[in-house]
Amino acid sequence: MAANIIDGKAFAAKVREQIKGHVDRLKEEHNITPGLAVVLVGEDPASEVYVAAKHKQTVESGMASFEHKLPADTSEEDLFALIDTLNADPNVHGILCQFPVPDHLDERRVVARIDPTKDVDGLSVVNAGLLASGEKGLVSCTPLGCLMLLRDQIENMSGKNAVVIGRSNLFGKPMGQLLLQQNCTVTIAHSRTQDLADVCRRADILVAAVGRAEMVKGDWVKPGATVIDVGITRIPHPDKPGKTKLLGDVDFAEASEVAGAITPVPGGVGPMTIACLLANTVTACCRANNLSEPEGLTV
Amino acid sequence: MAANIIDGKAFAAKVREQIKGHVDRLKEEHNITPGLAVVLVGEDPASEVYVAAKHKQTVESGMASFEHKLPADTSEEDLFALIDTLNADPNVHGILCQFPVPDHLDERRVVARIDPTKDVDGLSVVNAGLLASGEKGLVSCTPLGCLMLLRDQIENMSGKNAVVIGRSNLFGKPMGQLLLQQNCTVTIAHSRTQDLADVCRRADILVAAVGRAEMVKGDWVKPGATVIDVGITRIPHPDKPGKTKLLGDVDFAEASEVAGAITPVPGGVGPMTIACLLANTVTACCRANNLSEPEGLTV
Ligand SMILES: NC(=O)c1ccc[n+]([C@@H]2O[C@H](COP(=O)([O-])OP(=O)(O)OC[C@H]3O[C@@H](n4cnc5c(N)ncnc54)[C@H](OP(=O)(O)O)[C@@H]3O)[C@@H](O)[C@H]2O)c1
Ligand SMILES: NC(=O)c1ccc[n+]([C@@H]2O[C@H](COP(=O)([O-])OP(=O)(O)OC[C@H]3O[C@@H](n4cnc5c(N)ncnc54)[C@H](OP(=O)(O)O)[C@@H]3O)[C@@H](O)[C@H]2O)c1
Repeated sequence: MAANIIDGKAFAAKVREQIKGHVDRLKEEHNITPGLAVVLVGEDPASEVYVAAKHKQTVESGMASFEHKLPADTSEEDLFALIDTLNADPNVHGILCQFPVPDHLDERRVVARIDPTKDVDGLSVVNAGLLASGEKGLVSCTPLGCLMLLRDQIENMSGKNAVVIGRSNLFGKPMGQLLLQQNCTVTIAHSRTQDLADVCRRADILVAAVGRAEMVKGDWVKPGATVIDVGITRIPHPDKPGKTKLLGDVDFAEASEVAGAITPVPGGVGPMTIACLLANTVTACCRANNLSEPEGLTV
Repeated sequence: MAANIIDGKAFAAKVREQIKGHVDRLKEEHNITPGLAVVLVGEDPASEVYVAAKHKQTVESGMASFEHKLPADTSEEDLFALIDTLNADPNVHGILCQFPVPDHLDERRVVARIDPTKDVDGLSVVNAGLLASGEKGLVSCTPLGCLMLLRDQIENMSGKNAVVIGRSNLFGKPMGQLLLQQNCTVTIAHSRTQDLADVCRRADILVAAVGRAEMVKGDWVKPGATVIDVGITRIPHPDKPGKTKLLGDVDFAEASEVAGAITPVPGGVGPMTIACLLANTVTACCRANNLSEPEGLTV
């Protein structure tokens, strides 16, 4: 039986609609406009595309977008001075520094400089600790997006076997924490895992975040499982010379014959990441103003 | 074949010997005495026993022990004032507040007040975040003790299937992080886990931290597995009226016939906890003084 194909693009659009509703309400009822500041150091072309997309969606959702483009040779001192200003600015509720930053800057130190209550990328040690401790913080956007997709698919995750392939700080580890909070039995697999296919076959919920194109084969998937494909690999397009194509970590053609539901690549998890960045900004804004935070936008 | 019974008491004594060596060296070469401050609020008899044991072992290892006993009605303000003083005291390298504290105090707020670099219980959000992020922090004592026992038993944990039963902030979650750092494939199980026996049977390393006497049966254990029993349940002694007896989470009689190695209760994990508190204090002392930290005392 063919799987339900999860339309992440449509779902993300729905989340952004919801967010717009909350933003409108915050403006009308409280005269507050949630604001997101994005800092870009240097001129990495891929980063410029991401930053432009974030800006566009921030503005479309009715929020204030503050863009700060700094030259590639910006010193840590100057970058920190900007971050300190943004930390202190009551109109800025979320701050993110687009990575990668040039080599002379240390990403961990940059993240640590951002006020954890404004760290809408959820990358700081404090937010990792809050998540691990089951306390309220800001959750890394891509795992948060996957959680939203899963909540939409599965009414009750309690007791389900969840397998996450990948253990990065950015994705795999926070995803594991979120699934544990949903009362799944959680297994984290990675490059040293033995019999990975076997491990995957036990998963009612299988989340792959590796970055190896089509690694997860159809016979790795338990019939009826929900498969979330986070991986993105760009390859030369097989039919269109000079063009490229995105592949996920899951062999979609095979797995979609076995799974109960599956995200495609592109159009699955991808669109959720910026939607969750906006969601985190609204959440941070409500907290900063002691307003109750909208339901469904966070864990 | 009968399992190797892991003698935690002897191993903890060895660790304390090592620690004493490091303490002697710190005194001789650097004129520094590591110091541990223990704060006890109220007169819980069990807590008094623990605090006395910690004091005794701290002194025996050559460290300075600072005991602060406060009345049960101590206000948060007064407790925080003491913690602030200890945070600022260069002779104090580790601080712990014995839990439980009286109801009018909030354990999370108390832990959060302790300087994370002196939080030798490893319970703060910051230390949880450092552990989750794979950065240097202070690790909760009981999981650290289990890791030391495991490292002594298993030369290379990479690729082994590890199952942790229990997901508390105090034990289960940090234990999972430590096993992941050792490159195990890690599964966290808990009260909502289905077919727990099946999950356990896949474990090369099985760690039980539940608090249900003898829950893990012999046929839950994979032949040759290493079994670490963290649970402690006190029951009336079956043969000695008026006395009590400690039981672990594992049915020791059965499991020790199947496992490759197993910790008994008592005399397994238990003695490691205070040893690791001393270890963390030495580690914190070295870091505070910009000295290289002794190997083997931390992750
Ligand atoms: N917006 C989005 O859609 C979005 C967001 C984030 C990430 N991603 C994509 O998700 C993927 C992962 O991202 P990341 O940042 O988490 O990557 P990462 O930091 O490179 O982590 C990759 C993980 O995969 C594991 N791995 C590598 N080879 C493996 C193998 N053969 N079998 C099993 N596990 C293996 C690694 O294990 P070790 O730890 O043992 O090395 C590591 O834990 C990438 O393709 C990335 O582009 C997409
Ligand atoms: N020094 C030492 O030796 C030391 C130190 C610390 C702890 N301990 C002992 O270790 C045990 C656990 O301590 P803790 O602080 O982690 O306890 P805890 O906070 O009570 O956590 C117990 C965990 O066990 C899980 N659990 C409960 N019933 C279960 C069942 N039937 N099947 C599977 N899992 C079940 C719970 O699941 P849910 O999360 O779903 O409720 C929870 O995650 C206690 O006996 C404690 O005394 C000993």
